Amino acid sequence: MIRGVLLDIAGVIYDGDHALPGALDAVERLRRAGLALRFVTNTTRMTKRKVWERLKGFGLNVTEDELFTPAAAAREWLAAHDCSPSLLVHPGLVEEFKDQAGRAHRAVVVGDAGETFDFARLNGAFRELVAGAAFIALAKNRSFKDADGGLSLDAGAFVTALEFATGREALVLGKPAPAFFQAALASMDCRPEEAVMVGDDAEADIAGALQAGLSAALLVRTGKYRDGDETKFLPRPTATGANLSAAADWIVAHCAS
Amino acid sequence: MIRGVLLDIAGVIYDGDHALPGALDAVERLRRAGLALRFVTNTTRMTKRKVWERLKGFGLNVTEDELFTPAAAAREWLAAHDCSPSLLVHPGLVEEFKDQAGRAHRAVVVGDAGETFDFARLNGAFRELVAGAAFIALAKNRSFKDADGGLSLDAGAFVTALEFATGREALVLGKPAPAFFQAALASMDCRPEEAVMVGDDAEADIAGALQAGLSAALLVRTGKYRDGDETKFLPRPTATGANLSAAADWIVAHCAS
Repeated sequence: MIRGVLLDIAGVIYDGDHALPGALDAVERLRRAGLALRFVTNTTRMTKRKVWERLKGFGLNVTEDELFTPAAAAREWLAAHDCSPSLLVHPGLVEEFKDQAGRAHRAVVVGDAGETFDFARLNGAFRELVAGAAFIALAKNRSFKDADGGLSLDAGAFVTALEFATGREALVLGKPAPAFFQAALASMDCRPEEAVMVGDDAEADIAGALQAGLSAALLVRTGKYRDGDETKFLPRPTATGANLSAAADWIVAHCAS
Repeated sequence: MIRGVLLDIAGVIYDGDHALPGALDAVERLRRAGLALRFVTNTTRMTKRKVWERLKGFGLNVTEDELFTPAAAAREWLAAHDCSPSLLVHPGLVEEFKDQAGRAHRAVVVGDAGETFDFARLNGAFRELVAGAAFIALAKNRSFKDADGGLSLDAGAFVTALEFATGREALVLGKPAPAFFQAALASMDCRPEEAVMVGDDAEADIAGALQAGLSAALLVRTGKYRDGDETKFLPRPTATGANLSAAADWIVAHCAS
């Protein structure tokens, strides 16, 4: 019995500056089928508030409570562990952490800092980690589809660089961390086996969701999807569809059966 | 029977801008014992010619043929594989590759680019690798003792970032790659079991040499050596000595026996 659906956003609902064809209607069909929805993104280039406003700007019917971002998860982690962050994140995300200073301990927080990654900043983070700061990764994605259409280095490359140099392992807060999926599921009072994930990233979205115990994970051939992605990571997607509309058809059909 | 000795340079023969006490005399004692010598360094911030001139400037008796650097190994690899390099290296090393253009294929060559590492350069290398360029790492060291006395990120962090993002493995040309030790040994017509390595890096110098089959590897407590290094990596050093002078005593004694 499927009761809830987790939806990735970039490459599934929108691409660049526009909603993908049929995506908004697909979301409405899922809602009309009585399914609870949560939107789970590894986007680490803007605050949760900005992501929300952007989605509404595309015409998507979504509340702020339905949206889950790694930075929001990091805020909770920092508060729970009495840590102030040392940020290696995109300028667009700095505001999310502006009220997080003055705590007893330090945590290096690594996101997709994009073009603001340079040797001095990365080496500064390295030295803080060597000195004993906690090590938080907002995400560990390998690459993303950049504005020019090509693939670009994502946060995971820089997280891995720091892991290698320090001999330490980062605590990853975004997808594919099971805790990230579980927090979204818990907010809609839904067990993993009652939920389905839809995403364009065969590793973080699909393999991650299935490892977290979700009953199904559907890979869409939009966004960063490239031919053959469905066989690159284990577990493999339950099914692959042309886009979110096809995925919604699959879910509604399996929901009714 | 020991016939040849491989010597690391930085932290063994010199540190900063001066030869280490007793190091030049130790080299002379090894030569007088009839041993063939080769100097093997992972330095990737200057050309082989510059390293050689620097060593002579310290008063070391050394020929250019006795010196082995990863960049020189990369030149040979590029010629043998008909590749032009796409360089992600320190400005001081660019001259080493200036005559390597115009070949049929491309190879990304990653060294310790230091403060010239930035997002644009690393992402450019990533895209060349995704497009199919060969992937060469001059070294894969985790960190080095920087001018301010602190540890700083070395080439290995950036090599690992690109390996993670591309899902590919770099061909490492410097220590601890067995081929690097073997090339130095072959040049003095010496089998691995007839040779000893001396270095201050328990991973790249010591474990690397023993994995390459050398009969012994001596760790010196100079340069980047830190307390406890001798137990951090396997295989462990055959013996540990205060400096190159102590290591030379060990070698001459074992050579005569």
